Amino acid sequence: MEAVDEQHIRESHGPSALLLRGGYPWGYDVAAEILVRDGKITQIEPAVDVTDAEVIDVAGRLVLPGLVDAHCHLDKTLYGGPWVPHSAGDALADRIANDRTRRGELGIPNVDYVTALLERMAAAGTSYVRTHTDVDPDVGLRGIETVRTAAEHMSGRITVEQVAFPQHGLLTNPGTAELLEEALKNGVETIGGLDPASSDGDPVRNLDTTFSLAERYGAGVDIHLHDGGTLGAWEIELIADHTQVTGLRGRVAISHAYALGQIDEAYQARLLAQLAEAGVTLVTAAAYSFPVIPIKKALAAGVNVACGHDGIRDLWGPYGSGDMLERAMFVAYRSTFRRDDDIELALDAATYGGSRALGLKSYGLTIGAPADLVVVSARTPAEAVVARPMRELVLKAGRIVARNGRLI
Amino acid sequence: MEAVDEQHIRESHGPSALLLRGGYPWGYDVAAEILVRDGKITQIEPAVDVTDAEVIDVAGRLVLPGLVDAHCHLDKTLYGGPWVPHSAGDALADRIANDRTRRGELGIPNVDYVTALLERMAAAGTSYVRTHTDVDPDVGLRGIETVRTAAEHMSGRITVEQVAFPQHGLLTNPGTAELLEEALKNGVETIGGLDPASSDGDPVRNLDTTFSLAERYGAGVDIHLHDGGTLGAWEIELIADHTQVTGLRGRVAISHAYALGQIDEAYQARLLAQLAEAGVTLVTAAAYSFPVIPIKKALAAGVNVACGHDGIRDLWGPYGSGDMLERAMFVAYRSTFRRDDDIELALDAATYGGSRALGLKSYGLTIGAPADLVVVSARTPAEAVVARPMRELVLKAGRIVARNGRLI
Repeated sequence: MEAVDEQHIRESHGPSALLLRGGYPWGYDVAAEILVRDGKITQIEPAVDVTDAEVIDVAGRLVLPGLVDAHCHLDKTLYGGPWVPHSAGDALADRIANDRTRRGELGIPNVDYVTALLERMAAAGTSYVRTHTDVDPDVGLRGIETVRTAAEHMSGRITVEQVAFPQHGLLTNPGTAELLEEALKNGVETIGGLDPASSDGDPVRNLDTTFSLAERYGAGVDIHLHDGGTLGAWEIELIADHTQVTGLRGRVAISHAYALGQIDEAYQARLLAQLAEAGVTLVTAAAYSFPVIPIKKALAAGVNVACGHDGIRDLWGPYGSGDMLERAMFVAYRSTFRRDDDIELALDAATYGGSRALGLKSYGLTIGAPADLVVVSARTPAEAVVARPMRELVLKAGRIVARNGRLI
Repeated sequence: MEAVDEQHIRESHGPSALLLRGGYPWGYDVAAEILVRDGKITQIEPAVDVTDAEVIDVAGRLVLPGLVDAHCHLDKTLYGGPWVPHSAGDALADRIANDRTRRGELGIPNVDYVTALLERMAAAGTSYVRTHTDVDPDVGLRGIETVRTAAEHMSGRITVEQVAFPQHGLLTNPGTAELLEEALKNGVETIGGLDPASSDGDPVRNLDTTFSLAERYGAGVDIHLHDGGTLGAWEIELIADHTQVTGLRGRVAISHAYALGQIDEAYQARLLAQLAEAGVTLVTAAAYSFPVIPIKKALAAGVNVACGHDGIRDLWGPYGSGDMLERAMFVAYRSTFRRDDDIELALDAATYGGSRALGLKSYGLTIGAPADLVVVSARTPAEAVVARPMRELVLKAGRIVARNGRLI
């Protein structure tokens, strides 16, 4: 196949229409043309009858919706800077202490690093990012402001949602709750959390505080839950209960949830039913050797599943590339998915599942949705995940954001 | 940094010398020049005084020894062909049955696919490959011949060692032992095996047969061991015993050895001591979610550790890229290695550990060794593993094999 014909690609964002010709939109059995007008998808048909559109030849290519990174930590990143050897010990407490000591020394949060990472993400086809930003009395709201500034630098080429995240404790770190509240007042969309039992010491008061702030400011909730086994499982129940009581159905996520992979099947099934009932999303990163969320069982139970990178090149670990097709590959690989339809579940988590986690009103390869599109050379969506081919064309809200892997 | 200066790169293999200038050879604290003469490394010094050498500017680059893939299955690959959706059920028995049914239908083994994969491997800096080739009454020695032909097509740009592998049973598949013997007579270097207990039913007779063939033909042994828990652990003891008795010290490897990650620490320590004593190498692939060999403990006990891709784009699963830096990343990531010196252990497995597994007489960044060199833009070896940068220059025995990711 030839590369996307460059001369036909419009570089500027304008009012006129674009027609993607000859591609295979994910979920369509045959080649279909996609008409984009005023930033939205207005037609997907075998042949679109239009005269005023600029035609982009994507013959034989697969067309995916914009990728969604539902869990990362932009504010912590060292991306684009010099290599920084990891300096923490092996325990979680070592990494937390190392983070507090070294972030100042390394000038983190750093708007240039965050921007460099967002540029990489956009070039790799990511349209939406949910990022957990540290909020604590040391850093205050500087992380929130830094990420906001970097997102502004991207001028709409990627959408960034922030989670105000008490990385260094909520109840155990006086002043943090007030700062979280200030962040929410300030327009931050979601409130975060971290192991309400093992990290913060009082799970019920922690969740009461978190959920009541969410209710007061109309925010969503996204809790990091590393606690394993029966402790983590019990916290999952607690989060589901809080979601039910506060009526935050569809606005709550649990990230990591390692415990789900560490309990017996009957208990796992009961928890998944409870999460489905409460409308809680599960977000997995397939990080290191930690348990991956049991995706097929979660989906079968009716639970939404999303995925994200977690940290990328930061004081918590040096890994991560910013490419959500690679992250979907990790999710599929760690889930031992081999068949195409299984591998597509990981891609679904990196697209539609993420869009639901972020509460996007309109998303996907559907009429009326923003034209967030990713064009790759792959015969099937599973091949796109496995091979992670170059992003030949990326559109965000109808605007050409990247071509052949490079940001425009 | 600029890309390697193309005009200074000699494309042909000739008698004159090459001088790599300005690079940082792995393990050297300062920049050092590497002089290559007649295919070998003849000097590594801060400044080499030479007048007849062609100079290649690798300023600021990291120089690694050629990568070693110590476990793959070239004969099974569909690499370079059209995407083939995985068609087996989830059980191991399903994959074995699916393999037998579909390989004929898909024309496997296929010399073009094997060659395409070898080209990819060489371009990504792999200098040596150990590949397990199916031998059974259905396929006979066709796999061995196919891999040999493909290796010949590579005209020395990569070295391929074959393992005659009874994928479909040894004792349970009459005629296989005779074919393995024919393969060894025919010059195949190593004899393979597969789960002597669970797959072949009679572990002692299986290992007696395998090791006595190895002894008779001066071959090495490399056994796939997926069996978990105490069964697998007991088989590890059995293999160590057979190695001691037959005097094959240094010529035996166990691939996968999942059991090592599934037993208690005391038993694990005892097994590792036994393997060190017997001189048995452990080979890990960090495949899917299967346990990775406990690398730090194995090395501390004195056991050699190597790594490899396992299958790449075949009927056993669609994953794999042929890039050993990516594979080293998987090994490091799944081992939860975050610090540079830990991550280097994975790179060591993908280089020096592999060279010992394959019994290479001379290897590495050392005077007198074949000039198998890989040049990348990375500040540290750990960054090379994490970021997997483009291979700017690859030499095999002093010959330029690839530049900027492309085979010459």
